[in-house]
Amino acid sequence: MNEAAGKVAPFYAVELNRIANERQRRGLPVIHMEVGQPSAGAPAAAIEAGHRALRDCPQGYWESGALAERLAHLYRERYGLPVDPSQILLTMGASAALVLTIAVLFARGARVAVPRPGYPAHRNVLHALGLVPLELDCGSETRFQPTAAMIRALDPAPAGLILTSPSNPTGTMLPEAELRAITAACRERDIRIISDETYHGIIYGPRAHSMLEYGPDAVVVNTFSKYWCMTGWRLGWAVVPAPLVDVMRRFAGNLFLVPPTLSQHVALAAMDHAAELDGHVATYATNRRLLMAALPALGITHIAPADGAFYLYADVGHLTHDSLQWCRDLLDATGVALNTGKDFDSVHGGRFIRISFAVSTDETAQAIESLGRWLEARKRA
Amino acid sequence: MNEAAGKVAPFYAVELNRIANERQRRGLPVIHMEVGQPSAGAPAAAIEAGHRALRDCPQGYWESGALAERLAHLYRERYGLPVDPSQILLTMGASAALVLTIAVLFARGARVAVPRPGYPAHRNVLHALGLVPLELDCGSETRFQPTAAMIRALDPAPAGLILTSPSNPTGTMLPEAELRAITAACRERDIRIISDETYHGIIYGPRAHSMLEYGPDAVVVNTFSKYWCMTGWRLGWAVVPAPLVDVMRRFAGNLFLVPPTLSQHVALAAMDHAAELDGHVATYATNRRLLMAALPALGITHIAPADGAFYLYADVGHLTHDSLQWCRDLLDATGVALNTGKDFDSVHGGRFIRISFAVSTDETAQAIESLGRWLEARKRA
Repeated sequence: MNEAAGKVAPFYAVELNRIANERQRRGLPVIHMEVGQPSAGAPAAAIEAGHRALRDCPQGYWESGALAERLAHLYRERYGLPVDPSQILLTMGASAALVLTIAVLFARGARVAVPRPGYPAHRNVLHALGLVPLELDCGSETRFQPTAAMIRALDPAPAGLILTSPSNPTGTMLPEAELRAITAACRERDIRIISDETYHGIIYGPRAHSMLEYGPDAVVVNTFSKYWCMTGWRLGWAVVPAPLVDVMRRFAGNLFLVPPTLSQHVALAAMDHAAELDGHVATYATNRRLLMAALPALGITHIAPADGAFYLYADVGHLTHDSLQWCRDLLDATGVALNTGKDFDSVHGGRFIRISFAVSTDETAQAIESLGRWLEARKRA
Repeated sequence: MNEAAGKVAPFYAVELNRIANERQRRGLPVIHMEVGQPSAGAPAAAIEAGHRALRDCPQGYWESGALAERLAHLYRERYGLPVDPSQILLTMGASAALVLTIAVLFARGARVAVPRPGYPAHRNVLHALGLVPLELDCGSETRFQPTAAMIRALDPAPAGLILTSPSNPTGTMLPEAELRAITAACRERDIRIISDETYHGIIYGPRAHSMLEYGPDAVVVNTFSKYWCMTGWRLGWAVVPAPLVDVMRRFAGNLFLVPPTLSQHVALAAMDHAAELDGHVATYATNRRLLMAALPALGITHIAPADGAFYLYADVGHLTHDSLQWCRDLLDATGVALNTGKDFDSVHGGRFIRISFAVSTDETAQAIESLGRWLEARKRA
């Protein structure tokens, strides 16, 4: 057995999602704010392209050169970055891109720093692949993000650092100056950066910067799941520094072969329909404003300053130190499904909740009302 | 960098496939017998189900309970085995099932035995995940399969053994008595068996036995790619012993999340259309007969006795000791693309070729004719 098997935790979000789905099957209403999944699907025109590809194209092993080119173009459009299509490695979701990148970059037993709170699969994949996650305790004073000072203080230097900006669960972004400083610190200390840019495209303020603007030797992982609303299509990619392309392709061919063929057709079409997708982001922005206005009035005042993604990470330590049970109770009483911070932070997570607002604005308003009534009733109880 | 990076080899099949595709783009004819991919696609009715699901079903994260149940039923139908649907773990192809199984079962640095010749991803995934593949030299005297005696002779005992029956590249199957004996040897020595049953369903003689009939503690990996002709859909599964279900699910959730949603809909429909799929197997059987009759007349007499899969593995050591160059030359001269044995056997593979006959019978006949003319011309040259 893998000696780290006990360290790979299940997602509480999955448990809460299961309870929510059972509730729904019993005919009770549910608002799904527990999982990181847009309630919208891929653009209608992309689904049409899917029908056409299903009718006209063979569904054999395939890597879409056109999609790699289109993604390389995205880096020019979004960030002004020259990326060659050969540097784009299509993968089965950001998950496979991450597994692949970690498997290639590090020797077994190496230490890789990850922010806490952070996406649990980052530390769990490190455990699963025989590496040692080094959690960086990131509190509200640094916007729940690591700093160059934290990186410099690590002794000995880790082999790698995984960054997520905007972050899951907090939605906070690393400021440009900090991105620059972190890159410099990592370069000095020979720390390889993996930048998980899953939430780029879902931004509420100034544009997101790619780590590649500062550190061209970083590996970027990304996905069609979030901005493009294509979770179940399982398609992502890595942007690979030229010197690593050959070894990454060799590993990809052995570990995974190629990503799903039809998903590549659909994604290519989806990339031409930004208007529909930006409409979803506008909905998230409205939902975010509603929540940011309403939660303080309900006594939830410590909320991470989310610059992007579709999450609010809120401190509910004045209400509970067991936010998993709190979420179960809320779901049971109201049908509003949120997630516990324990998925993201094994130390302080019991004081936190994550609210995913990639739902409709009506649902957001209903959730606020239900939460308010429930909190009021608990106060009286 | 992963210290084993240099040991993870690229597939020669991919190189030969690239040359073949370039040739095709230049308008020259090609017969693709270099890759392990059926030339047919999923059943027509399954594609129709795909259109329906694309129209009517959300394409979010999803695990099909119905598909797990249908697969559990397959083990009752095919092998008379009681498998609970909870033991079926749906994955992104057999590739992800294998990565997952290896990541869960073994401590880093553990030794895992694999037959040589064998599917290259088996040993390469072991390298990539920090394990040590232990190649078992399997020649024609044991039908290119390992034996219980070989397992017993390993000192110290390895932590695991990967079996593939029918084998890729040879198509040979382990006889029932040997399956039983290997299971006993592994049980005695506490060796965990991973059984890659990718080619079950494509059998030319007596039915294939699942390793689970003998060793219920084995992990079986399988895929919709081959019998169901769904390569580009990237859907496979693992059958997991009950005590491992929890840890396998935790790893799967972290490493991969879930497999593609639409693929699950299509696969479920495909499972009801065995007649169309068995028709393809009948074509392979015809192609196999043609090749087995024709090759000896062309001087290729040492062919592995393929019981299943859609490969012939032939010794061409009397013609070349560099079968990669030989395949390049054949492709260049005739458009017939075969694969070198070097993908499967780094020691003796230069004497071998693998012929994938999952093509039409017309193509098979043409390939035989072209190969014959080419060999004749070379003899005269």
